[in-house]
Amino acid sequence: MADPATTYSVWLEAVNWNADGLVPATAQETPGGAVLTLAWMNREALERTAATGLAHYWSRSRGKLWQKGEQSGHVQRVREIRLDCDNDAVLLVVEQQGGIACHTGRHRCFFQRLENGVWRSVEPVLKDPETIYGGSNGQ
Amino acid sequence: MADPATTYSVWLEAVNWNADGLVPATAQETPGGAVLTLAWMNREALERTAATGLAHYWSRSRGKLWQKGEQSGHVQRVREIRLDCDNDAVLLVVEQQGGIACHTGRHRCFFQRLENGVWRSVEPVLKDPETIYGGSNGQ
Repeated sequence: MADPATTYSVWLEAVNWNADGLVPATAQETPGGAVLTLAWMNREALERTAATGLAHYWSRSRGKLWQKGEQSGHVQRVREIRLDCDNDAVLLVVEQQGGIACHTGRHRCFFQRLENGVWRSVEPVLKDPETIYGGSNGQ
Repeated sequence: MADPATTYSVWLEAVNWNADGLVPATAQETPGGAVLTLAWMNREALERTAATGLAHYWSRSRGKLWQKGEQSGHVQRVREIRLDCDNDAVLLVVEQQGGIACHTGRHRCFFQRLENGVWRSVEPVLKDPETIYGGSNGQ
């Protein structure tokens, strides 16, 4: 009988981590299908995401693992984890707690749309980030 | 009066290109909302995508710019170009010509789903890649 710990890691070995040990992870909301965020995962982030059902990422700017919503409460409950044909990009299908995925207080991070050569913010701020984070610069 | 060429480039300067001059770009299909692909763009790829309305990417493996579907005919007609809050990830909303985005002949690249610790292919091959590419290894 296979060692459960060994068996468990096989799917993680299949991922083509980049030179920094990371893969990009797109989070798509269910229901509705909005693409919310693109963040980065290291092996531990993907492992914890699968184990807990809550999205975890690797913060490149802070150099640490974080659980999405750990400060804001805006956690992402993961319904599906998918991998692409090259094994180097992840797609999470998530339920977005609180309806806010972006640290700016918007529904989603992709709120800038190119219009006639200008990036325009086309989605409203739903909640003041100061209220969400109490003055800290969290995610 | 501003030089049009200069004005045009301002939105490209806003993008936070990584150390290799690239950003990840997620393509989402309209109608339906399926997340099709994650590919990479350099400045020229993004500029050409905006100018032509057809998705262009940078192939890291081949070290060249390519138009999605240039061999297969499975072009992506771009309806929206979006940028995230950190200016370092792009979202394209596209109409996928031929209904096939993946070089494996599947609808989308994210066809592997994690199930009980195993990546399972959960989407059918719609067209034999040999038929699509005539034996070449195109995208």
